[in-house]
Amino acid sequence: MTSLKIVFCFLLISFSAFAQKDYKLWLQYDQISNSQMAQEYNAEIKGIVSLGSSETSKIALKELELGLNNMLGNKIAVKSKFEGSNNVIVGAKSNLNSELLKTIQDDFNAINEEGFIIKFISLKNKKQIVITGKNDIAVLYGVYHFLRLLQTNKSIKNLSIADSPKTNIRILNHWDNLDRTVERGYAGFSLWNWQKLPDFIDQRYIDYARVNASIGINGTVLTNVNANALILTPQYLEKVEALANVFRLYGIKVYLTARFSAPIEIGGLKTADPKDIAVANWWKDKAKEIYKRIPDFGGFLVKANSEGQPGPQNYGRDHVDGANMLADAVAPFGGVIMWRAFVYSEHDANDRAKQAYAEFQPYDGKFKDNVIVQVKNGAIDFQPREPFHPLFGAMKKTPIMMEFQITQEYLGFSTHLVYLPKLFQEVLEADTYQAGKGSTVAKVVDGSLYKNKLSGIAGVANIGNDLNWTGHPFAQANWYGFGRLAWDPYLDAGVIADEWLRSTFSNNENFIKPVKKMMLQSRETVVDYMTPLGLHHIMDTGHHYGPGPWVSNLSRPEWNPTYYHKADKNGIGFDRSKTGTNATAQYASQVEKIFDNSETCPEQDLLWFHHVSWDYKLKNGQTLWNGMALKYQEGVNEVHEMQNTWNNAEKYVDEERFKEVQMLLGIQYKEAKWWRDACLLYFQQYSGKELPAGVEKPTQTLEYFKSLKFPFAPGN
Amino acid sequence: MTSLKIVFCFLLISFSAFAQKDYKLWLQYDQISNSQMAQEYNAEIKGIVSLGSSETSKIALKELELGLNNMLGNKIAVKSKFEGSNNVIVGAKSNLNSELLKTIQDDFNAINEEGFIIKFISLKNKKQIVITGKNDIAVLYGVYHFLRLLQTNKSIKNLSIADSPKTNIRILNHWDNLDRTVERGYAGFSLWNWQKLPDFIDQRYIDYARVNASIGINGTVLTNVNANALILTPQYLEKVEALANVFRLYGIKVYLTARFSAPIEIGGLKTADPKDIAVANWWKDKAKEIYKRIPDFGGFLVKANSEGQPGPQNYGRDHVDGANMLADAVAPFGGVIMWRAFVYSEHDANDRAKQAYAEFQPYDGKFKDNVIVQVKNGAIDFQPREPFHPLFGAMKKTPIMMEFQITQEYLGFSTHLVYLPKLFQEVLEADTYQAGKGSTVAKVVDGSLYKNKLSGIAGVANIGNDLNWTGHPFAQANWYGFGRLAWDPYLDAGVIADEWLRSTFSNNENFIKPVKKMMLQSRETVVDYMTPLGLHHIMDTGHHYGPGPWVSNLSRPEWNPTYYHKADKNGIGFDRSKTGTNATAQYASQVEKIFDNSETCPEQDLLWFHHVSWDYKLKNGQTLWNGMALKYQEGVNEVHEMQNTWNNAEKYVDEERFKEVQMLLGIQYKEAKWWRDACLLYFQQYSGKELPAGVEKPTQTLEYFKSLKFPFAPGN
Repeated sequence: MTSLKIVFCFLLISFSAFAQKDYKLWLQYDQISNSQMAQEYNAEIKGIVSLGSSETSKIALKELELGLNNMLGNKIAVKSKFEGSNNVIVGAKSNLNSELLKTIQDDFNAINEEGFIIKFISLKNKKQIVITGKNDIAVLYGVYHFLRLLQTNKSIKNLSIADSPKTNIRILNHWDNLDRTVERGYAGFSLWNWQKLPDFIDQRYIDYARVNASIGINGTVLTNVNANALILTPQYLEKVEALANVFRLYGIKVYLTARFSAPIEIGGLKTADPKDIAVANWWKDKAKEIYKRIPDFGGFLVKANSEGQPGPQNYGRDHVDGANMLADAVAPFGGVIMWRAFVYSEHDANDRAKQAYAEFQPYDGKFKDNVIVQVKNGAIDFQPREPFHPLFGAMKKTPIMMEFQITQEYLGFSTHLVYLPKLFQEVLEADTYQAGKGSTVAKVVDGSLYKNKLSGIAGVANIGNDLNWTGHPFAQANWYGFGRLAWDPYLDAGVIADEWLRSTFSNNENFIKPVKKMMLQSRETVVDYMTPLGLHHIMDTGHHYGPGPWVSNLSRPEWNPTYYHKADKNGIGFDRSKTGTNATAQYASQVEKIFDNSETCPEQDLLWFHHVSWDYKLKNGQTLWNGMALKYQEGVNEVHEMQNTWNNAEKYVDEERFKEVQMLLGIQYKEAKWWRDACLLYFQQYSGKELPAGVEKPTQTLEYFKSLKFPFAPGN
Repeated sequence: MTSLKIVFCFLLISFSAFAQKDYKLWLQYDQISNSQMAQEYNAEIKGIVSLGSSETSKIALKELELGLNNMLGNKIAVKSKFEGSNNVIVGAKSNLNSELLKTIQDDFNAINEEGFIIKFISLKNKKQIVITGKNDIAVLYGVYHFLRLLQTNKSIKNLSIADSPKTNIRILNHWDNLDRTVERGYAGFSLWNWQKLPDFIDQRYIDYARVNASIGINGTVLTNVNANALILTPQYLEKVEALANVFRLYGIKVYLTARFSAPIEIGGLKTADPKDIAVANWWKDKAKEIYKRIPDFGGFLVKANSEGQPGPQNYGRDHVDGANMLADAVAPFGGVIMWRAFVYSEHDANDRAKQAYAEFQPYDGKFKDNVIVQVKNGAIDFQPREPFHPLFGAMKKTPIMMEFQITQEYLGFSTHLVYLPKLFQEVLEADTYQAGKGSTVAKVVDGSLYKNKLSGIAGVANIGNDLNWTGHPFAQANWYGFGRLAWDPYLDAGVIADEWLRSTFSNNENFIKPVKKMMLQSRETVVDYMTPLGLHHIMDTGHHYGPGPWVSNLSRPEWNPTYYHKADKNGIGFDRSKTGTNATAQYASQVEKIFDNSETCPEQDLLWFHHVSWDYKLKNGQTLWNGMALKYQEGVNEVHEMQNTWNNAEKYVDEERFKEVQMLLGIQYKEAKWWRDACLLYFQQYSGKELPAGVEKPTQTLEYFKSLKFPFAPGN
């Protein structure tokens, strides 16, 4: 379809919606169209009784009303006392009368502070549904879960649910700058309108809090890890306080990034040495000042001595010194320090993948109780595929939290449809073997492997001020899925996709089945057309948009794509086995053994761990060169399939979102071909081989691809 | 109300709206609540007959359906032929059959190419309503006008309207950069998502085109006057073309800013000398390239040799050389060059207000036919009040177009409620006397004074990617009002405010009366609390946010506030009379005489033209010092009144927009006091006098106000 035709069709049909549906994310609360389920719900739900009087109780009640009234197409009566049966009774434990409490007392043993109970009970022979928990936030979570059951057309007969989150800290990291640009942001600009805060509370802050509460997110870091100390000045703290006041009612704590040199930049001190008494006191006073405004302030996220950020090493100190000094400052107030392990020395370009482990593992057990080390899912930097980070499970006395990237820095920005929970699940299910078989990353992350008190999972947000919040309508699923996995790292990505599709688009099976399949395949698709067989970090310079495997001129060697693929006429791939940099030795021996041997190394990680010949025989009998080229083509073909799948879904989707996704898939298809062509032309210089049958010839030259410049690519 | 309480109230009520109403601007099409009018409309409108088949015809039909169906709460039948009576027949002249044509043939003489006719006619004894014009865009304008009648509850009985725009070029100037930041933008960031263009057409482009067509805007400059040559490269022209394809259907031409040094920056030439053949040819080829993609490309807007922008003077050439060279390049294709007269030499700080006239007036009659000189409304830079620019009417052989600023760079960003059409009207009604009495600026701007072929009016847009487009809900009225005045520079600001309130909020008289009054007063209010009595350009450095009358250290003297108020112990004000810089002599003698004498000079311009003593007696008997202080206080009091007015309007407005405006007025009140306190403390150092009774004492010191820094104020 020519773009003009697309434009025109778009025009004809797009008048009345005024972009509402996009904005509502997965809280569409569309009227239930399945008549059988609608009947069941209407029969089972006749009224609402809200037992709390706090502001959060009122929010929970309003959400329940909003959801039920819209989904059932009826105004459900809100009663002030128990009349009749089939009321949804909502209230925290302290608000339940003794009669009610008696029916569910034991269930409270099955949940933690944030968990909820949803149960059909019998009160004076009348059936009632109770949604409760140990406090109002837990009840709010229960309300959202209950509404999700209806959104996803689940039966609610004889409900008996007791659910608790498995991690403590379920947190978004916004790489938002104070000028409202967002580093690696592809969904517009920062939500936080600092200039109008504290007095202007944008409706979007409230809707942000709602949707996060609906997936159990309980924390948000407002500022970029490449930090600006000004956020810690009174002028900005007043604004942060205003945001905290909104988010608190939804159970979301506010955190900030701490610029390690803040004592100098805004404190007037001459040093930021963590062992300096004046510096430690400055942070103590700063913490006191913050907690006076924000009593439940979460704490600090810190990027130190990484990519130019200041840190303890500037003063001959180490990460433990830095983290513990900050930990002492916030400990009296219940705060935590999330200290990032994303380090790689500018003086040692040996193997970037080894450096975080080498630097941090020796510090095991030395951090204070309220410090948690934040580790990216893989040892390089959020590639379409990376083996799990060797630090998971390797620090037995230090809590480690996961850092996932929800924003698609290396996965096609907000233009490419990629369902990331498949990536997240793959990492979480990986067995580290650090405490024997079954020592999965999920067990590290939820703290159960080593019985940590602190546990957590962070996601670098893909949220901005675009009307649809995430740039691509399907990128919303990654925010959703991140939240669900933060709550329960053992969930299946397919189950999550199903929930999301039903809540966001439609419960029609003819829609769900193919679109869910498309989502579940999409991660492997992007791996295929960008970085198959373990290739990584071959994106173009700086902005990471589009292919750049030829780039070799950056100021640090380990920023160059050539460093990562090491293509030459003999082969391709990074030897991280014992014949190379021996990065495999950082894993438990069972894992090391598997990765070390190219025969046993999973083929999807082959070129991450091994440098192999262009003639290397893959499991399917193809040579490495042919197999790689066919993978690229497979990726392109799969995007074409995605386009077909989506086109067939037209009748199930509102016109506007249908067209949005259709246009974006069109771009994704073009870009998949761009990736294939640019990479194969480049690597072909080294393989010296023809493209195998089945791989389309490129339509441009390598010089053309090398000439493409994107000076204003977003997020950079 | 404490901010926490405000937050909570906001939470309770804001769930269901999901921010829809803000987005819809003045095309709410709410169902008509006035039963009498609803009855009349339903009686008079029974069907729609659309006679065209072009894409624009279909758009017009869809808009008519959308508007009528929503406002009348009925689905109005769309018929394929004339059945029955009271059909709204929509079609351009060429689509009217001879019978129809006969009834309105003469009316076509009363309209121009963009004008429309709306008329009740009788066809075979049946009453019909015809909306027609000479082409489909004109018909679209007619449809919007017709819908506006219903939106504003006007009677449509016996309609007979023939209306045409009075200016040719009715254009928005977006100061948008390619990185999506917006210079002097306070409504988020640029709408244009360059990275996803040309293939992704954001719904907002379409809604932007609709609302602009509804007020007759027929052109848009997509890029900042501080230009970037990259927009002229193929990579970006492809994207511009995609936008032009959307906007064309709504009668909106696309224009770009031309970076004068583009031949060097992207053309590989060694010079950009307009007299150089290679340079002229480069522009000719570039124009050809553009018009091949965009056959109705509007032309270029140029800022040259101003504030560091390159231009002809870099090569010893003049504005005429530069403009005419570009004019030749676009003339074969019907394009125009809008050449800005916003110049002030970095080598002559004598009186900035004199420089544009001094530089441009001698060039009168030397520009090519397709050049129009674009002049800001006043001689300095978009202050809350400036006397009209002396260039208006002074160039008798050169078309001049108006440049207004809709974005509130010096008027409180998007935080302060200021209804700008009052400012626009004041300028348009000003009598230049350049061709005798009645030579109003409006007659210059619509080309009627000197019978120019080209005429136009530009507005620096206040539009960004905020959900409500303009940051402040009431800032939408400034976009609306600009469009209405561009169509008809003789309209009254009160009539426009009335239209806008009815279309955007409510037709209830109890709402309209006080809120309209508030809007009409708001411009004078901001003058009172920022720059009363002719004061100007005393905003803080760079970002222009908040008061900075003390600033005196900027690199160019005529950027310093002290340059403009010249406060000393003897008095305050800039002497532009014959005893000073004699800027008054640039006006026609009748005007010069009035301004020159402090007795006859309008008091609102006193300190613009005169340096007077602190004891100078104002017309109301007060000394200058007392009068100025009382003006500041009056402004503060008026904002308080605005708050009361708005609070009383609560029941007529949806909760969400009510709260938005309420919060913003709260900030405006605080900031009005900030202005009053900072300015009076500062000037008091020179007046040496006490504050008069009635003026509240400041709550902070002058040092405190001087210490306030806003490193991330938007738009800078």
